[in-house]
Amino acid sequence: METSRLEAFADGVFAIAATLLIIDVTANAPGAELGAALLHAWPEYAAYAVSFVTIGIMWVNHHACMNQIGRANRTFLFANIALLACIAFVPFPTRLVAEHVRDDGARAAALAYGLTLTATAICFQAFWFYAAAGRRLIAEHADQRTVSGISRAFLPGVPVYAGATLVALWNPQAAVALFAAIAIFYVVESSLFGRG
Amino acid sequence: METSRLEAFADGVFAIAATLLIIDVTANAPGAELGAALLHAWPEYAAYAVSFVTIGIMWVNHHACMNQIGRANRTFLFANIALLACIAFVPFPTRLVAEHVRDDGARAAALAYGLTLTATAICFQAFWFYAAAGRRLIAEHADQRTVSGISRAFLPGVPVYAGATLVALWNPQAAVALFAAIAIFYVVESSLFGRG
Amino acid sequence: METSRLEAFADGVFAIAATLLIIDVTANAPGAELGAALLHAWPEYAAYAVSFVTIGIMWVNHHACMNQIGRANRTFLFANIALLACIAFVPFPTRLVAEHVRDDGARAAALAYGLTLTATAICFQAFWFYAAAGRRLIAEHADQRTVSGISRAFLPGVPVYAGATLVALWNPQAAVALFAAIAIFYVVESSLFGRG
Amino acid sequence: METSRLEAFADGVFAIAATLLIIDVTANAPGAELGAALLHAWPEYAAYAVSFVTIGIMWVNHHACMNQIGRANRTFLFANIALLACIAFVPFPTRLVAEHVRDDGARAAALAYGLTLTATAICFQAFWFYAAAGRRLIAEHADQRTVSGISRAFLPGVPVYAGATLVALWNPQAAVALFAAIAIFYVVESSLFGRG
Repeated sequence: METSRLEAFADGVFAIAATLLIIDVTANAPGAELGAALLHAWPEYAAYAVSFVTIGIMWVNHHACMNQIGRANRTFLFANIALLACIAFVPFPTRLVAEHVRDDGARAAALAYGLTLTATAICFQAFWFYAAAGRRLIAEHADQRTVSGISRAFLPGVPVYAGATLVALWNPQAAVALFAAIAIFYVVESSLFGRG
Repeated sequence: METSRLEAFADGVFAIAATLLIIDVTANAPGAELGAALLHAWPEYAAYAVSFVTIGIMWVNHHACMNQIGRANRTFLFANIALLACIAFVPFPTRLVAEHVRDDGARAAALAYGLTLTATAICFQAFWFYAAAGRRLIAEHADQRTVSGISRAFLPGVPVYAGATLVALWNPQAAVALFAAIAIFYVVESSLFGRG
Repeated sequence: METSRLEAFADGVFAIAATLLIIDVTANAPGAELGAALLHAWPEYAAYAVSFVTIGIMWVNHHACMNQIGRANRTFLFANIALLACIAFVPFPTRLVAEHVRDDGARAAALAYGLTLTATAICFQAFWFYAAAGRRLIAEHADQRTVSGISRAFLPGVPVYAGATLVALWNPQAAVALFAAIAIFYVVESSLFGRG
Repeated sequence: METSRLEAFADGVFAIAATLLIIDVTANAPGAELGAALLHAWPEYAAYAVSFVTIGIMWVNHHACMNQIGRANRTFLFANIALLACIAFVPFPTRLVAEHVRDDGARAAALAYGLTLTATAICFQAFWFYAAAGRRLIAEHADQRTVSGISRAFLPGVPVYAGATLVALWNPQAAVALFAAIAIFYVVESSLFGRG
């Protein structure tokens, strides 16, 4: 079974999940003058940007994985679907964080965001290690050093997101700042070190 | 007429229908504390997961069918459009079930969900058997045993979904559990037996 | 300039416009029992089906045109964008018709639907005849009889939709029935006569 | 790293951002007769058309850039994601302009629209000049005159949109007319001079 339609379906879900984020940017502030409402709504733009970039990072990683993978079986198709279900879920906790980061729902919202990203990281590891274990689905031509490099790069994902989620129990705003910092760190780091 | 644009259009509809499911996850509970509202909304997450996986299964099956199909004609294009119209309809009854599974709209919601999936299964059979009958649209290279295997695998679809829909008349919550069980069974079974 | 990305973009817009139709299926009937509300909402399902199939027909036609077209220039890209803007607009009058076909907004809703489809038919003709005139963008290998056949098939589009729109001035429900009949006629006719 | 999945992801975001614009066309005018409400809502249709065409122009330009680009690295992937995040943001200020162009929120709405398009133009320049500088990611076969022509064509983008945004401080309706005029000018000019 070849992987091109898997990539087409995945690209569709990544693109739609990222683009749907804009539906939840509303700047609703009943009674306020529009300019003031737009300035007050800055957490909505920040949440949009962080989630868009986070989904973008995951798309880049999916891309990097699929470059090494030469075939698919049914288990792998379902691992991919579970991963995509997590990614398509991201707009929901994004909306919660944007709406509640400044009120007493901040802890619940940050926990929901963190749990979603932690679950996504777990599914991403399952997706990759299922394919990479014993080169089960790895393409013939793939260089084992690249495959091992991706495996090493995946290891910090779950503990980093789980850690940031635990921070939300203690200080939700700090956890939200951490989610943003993780996204920025990843972009900067991979631009500095990952130059093609 | 070749099938690549048919697949691109279908992949788009599958990906969008699955990803749009998140729009209906809202955790609205006016007056409740956010954490409590998020816990109370668990049927929304369960409905999201079951429908996402169900659409994913259908995408895998569509993929499996199209691997055997070598060409398309206009009748087949419209059979495909009817199938996609059913799949793109799934977010509506999903929302109904998520909202009403715990109130007195449960029966109507479960019936709507079941009728949608039964109609989808009927369209899927029409889509496949139109192409497979007398190998009308089957690719030259396709192995007849694979084609017959897909035909056999399709047979239980309509009775299973129609049966679960009938259960909704008697016990809607049991029917909803059945819809979830069918999705889980399919994933587990095809992962155990369908290993590529 | 080759046409593959034009097709990818068009397929995306067709697939999204069709799939977004489900957002407007809501079965809102405040105070009613859910089962009764779902039955009462039948015009929403009918409008969904007619618009989904209508967009599907346009996708099939776009597909048929692009099979004959071998290259694109900037004018053609913008003709395509104008056509896609019309198609992506269809969910709006669909929602109007579904909501208002039984109240005193029926005339305005049917006119909006008819004007949208008439504008779409005009853009479709411009799109095709720009490419086909003097074989400006037609592929070398394309058979002139096929090209002329498509041109002939396009001619009734504008008068048919404009005529149905005029009917809406006199009887909006009859016009809505006509829009449904046109879609059904097209599917049946092209399945009977267009067999590949 | 090859560019085909980058294009698939980008095409998805462009297509979805453009198609999502229809969600915000609502013609809500409580208490008004539907026909009157539909006529009154003309700024919603105009805003839809201008933003759809503007996103379409950007898609054509992205297409023109990618035709010259032969490979991608991680920095370029993230430049592309930043650009797509701007484009997917366009539906939000479009909705603001459509709703507020005739009330006292017009200035804030026009500024939000202008700032979004200016940010998009900046990201587009970064995206292109990162790839084009020293032919870093330009394909071997690409003609340097075409590459330089694209570079020259990009130069007016930022000042034109920044200028129109400044006009919004003084006269928001004039700025909105300018945004429409820029889109129309671009389509006409590139159709007249850019004939393939």
